[in-house]
Amino acid sequence: MFELLKTDPHSRARLGRLTTSRGVIDTPVFMPVGTQGSVKALDPRELLEMGTQIILGNTYHLHIRPGLDIINAAGGLHQFINWPHPILTDSGGFQVFSLAKIRKIKPHGVEFRSHLDGSLLFLGPKEAMEIQRALGSDIAMVFDDCPPHTSAPREMRAAVERTIRWAGECREQPRAAGQKVFGIVQGGSDPALREECAKQLVALDFDGYAIGGVSVGEPEPEMMKAVEVTEPFLPANKARYAMGLGTPAQLVELVARGVDMFDCVLPTRVARNGTAFTTRGTVSIKAGFNKSDFRPIEEGCECFACRHFTRAYLRHLLNVGEILGLRMVSVHNSHMFLKVMADIRAALAAGTFAEFRREFVANYIPSRKILLAREESR
Amino acid sequence: MFELLKTDPHSRARLGRLTTSRGVIDTPVFMPVGTQGSVKALDPRELLEMGTQIILGNTYHLHIRPGLDIINAAGGLHQFINWPHPILTDSGGFQVFSLAKIRKIKPHGVEFRSHLDGSLLFLGPKEAMEIQRALGSDIAMVFDDCPPHTSAPREMRAAVERTIRWAGECREQPRAAGQKVFGIVQGGSDPALREECAKQLVALDFDGYAIGGVSVGEPEPEMMKAVEVTEPFLPANKARYAMGLGTPAQLVELVARGVDMFDCVLPTRVARNGTAFTTRGTVSIKAGFNKSDFRPIEEGCECFACRHFTRAYLRHLLNVGEILGLRMVSVHNSHMFLKVMADIRAALAAGTFAEFRREFVANYIPSRKILLAREESR
Repeated sequence: MFELLKTDPHSRARLGRLTTSRGVIDTPVFMPVGTQGSVKALDPRELLEMGTQIILGNTYHLHIRPGLDIINAAGGLHQFINWPHPILTDSGGFQVFSLAKIRKIKPHGVEFRSHLDGSLLFLGPKEAMEIQRALGSDIAMVFDDCPPHTSAPREMRAAVERTIRWAGECREQPRAAGQKVFGIVQGGSDPALREECAKQLVALDFDGYAIGGVSVGEPEPEMMKAVEVTEPFLPANKARYAMGLGTPAQLVELVARGVDMFDCVLPTRVARNGTAFTTRGTVSIKAGFNKSDFRPIEEGCECFACRHFTRAYLRHLLNVGEILGLRMVSVHNSHMFLKVMADIRAALAAGTFAEFRREFVANYIPSRKILLAREESR
Repeated sequence: MFELLKTDPHSRARLGRLTTSRGVIDTPVFMPVGTQGSVKALDPRELLEMGTQIILGNTYHLHIRPGLDIINAAGGLHQFINWPHPILTDSGGFQVFSLAKIRKIKPHGVEFRSHLDGSLLFLGPKEAMEIQRALGSDIAMVFDDCPPHTSAPREMRAAVERTIRWAGECREQPRAAGQKVFGIVQGGSDPALREECAKQLVALDFDGYAIGGVSVGEPEPEMMKAVEVTEPFLPANKARYAMGLGTPAQLVELVARGVDMFDCVLPTRVARNGTAFTTRGTVSIKAGFNKSDFRPIEEGCECFACRHFTRAYLRHLLNVGEILGLRMVSVHNSHMFLKVMADIRAALAAGTFAEFRREFVANYIPSRKILLAREESR
């Protein structure tokens, strides 16, 4: 399923290829997030034009609305949303532990109240896999226990034990035809816990491994550390996926730490507030200095927004509340994330990743506000 | 400028061709409304794909935001919004009289407060034409006095006199290169006033004539009457434009009464509430009966939305507040209005308009709610 094409001699970065029943994915890859069955503000044509290879869907959200019966009747998630290309579904673990009101953690799952209408629901390994089977995603994620990064060591250990046990239960569930399943490593920033969790999951032999419990409010060094202490225990011949990350510069740094797959709500979320990503950092398109700036969001960018519209026009649209404004910034930002990954792949293929990484990170000025925005609910 | 290609033997309907410096427009034509420089939720590519020939812009709104200096610096409205095809600009008369707080009607215009920030502004024939010249629209409208349909006869007469006087003043103002100017007939539902206004405007020899003071809250029969009593006094060799109208069935009926051009906010406005237009009337896509309806909004419709998405999916998107939902209903509705006009033109060319009209109006079930929605501010 995963083919390791090349490794970078100066870092842990890898060029790879992930084969799913609905298409081949070049890695490292960024996966736009379609939580509720739609990558916010974008349509499938726009996603394909910007080079999207795979998108995300979410078990928790889709289970609540529209509900499995409707997606089943449609013939699965791909059919329902008209995206015949690969889809990875998150198991809902993260949402149950972050969005829902938990009533009780039980041996085989979590009893919780919907964040929407308070109705009582139950999600565990069996249910999460059952739903993902019905959704028909190409890659399903195990149902994990994702505790806050501030959890006490004792709670963190309990979450890891539960995550391992539940991963084993997920492993036994039936799958959709051709569906791959990834394990999720938890353990916060405790190297021993991360190592133990990784080893136990690897022993279960999943199709790929995710690093979870990141992008949960922890500072960047802690996040990087969580990845660094996990990665050595993941097999080279399986894809690694860092969940819910990150800024463009973080993506580059995480690739250098051996990560192959990413998803993040940042590009579309900040777009709706009028913030655009560029290779120099973020810029507020609504800001006064863009009033008469008739250049595109970023010179040289080949996205639909930059080929057609100026900052001055987009600023006007955002200021008067026209939907086209947030649409076009969403297009640009998503394209930018995908382009960074394409550039990374090209640099890895050309053997120039070290240089690319150095220049990219030097140019990119991180914004505190953006780092915080990532940590909101997803 | 306007070429009358064919007239229907059974009604006043006309097939025509309107030549502007930015392209030829086949009439009867529907013009999507881009009040603030964007047809709500749609991008220029989508507009072209659905057969848009000309869009509207608005002097009042664009004058307030982003302001003329910015549009000037961009090189005009076409450049600013990246729509190189024809644009008609409304003069702002309607908005001044409906949206703004009027402070004083003066001989040469209206002193009013911006509906946004209360700042004191002045708009009259000279200013409206100056702004439209700077916008560089292909068709400019005269600055008129558009009174409520409930106005007393005395006020209606004063408005007509003012409209005629201001039309004369507009006629004398400089224009952008190739810019055409249309007069606007007022007079409510008083046949004598309408006749007088039409005759006086025709004497001023405009490039086309609009019927204003419709779509201002009057009942449909009164609206139809206003058109019927005006049309006979408009020259056959000039285009006629009924402002702010209407539902699909009304468009067919107005074509039958000799109107060539239409604009209306209905298709995009109701789309944002999840209401779709079909040839049988409107349908609420959010309604429960669409839950598992995997057909397109309208069978046989060739719009982007109907080619790609089902009612069930669009209902889900609208219910969870995903922007793609309102985008796609906006695409469908705008396409539907444009398709009705294309079908009308085909029927006129084939000599089958009487049949088309009869069938269309018989099939189309009007909705009271929709008729009311049209009457809101534009």
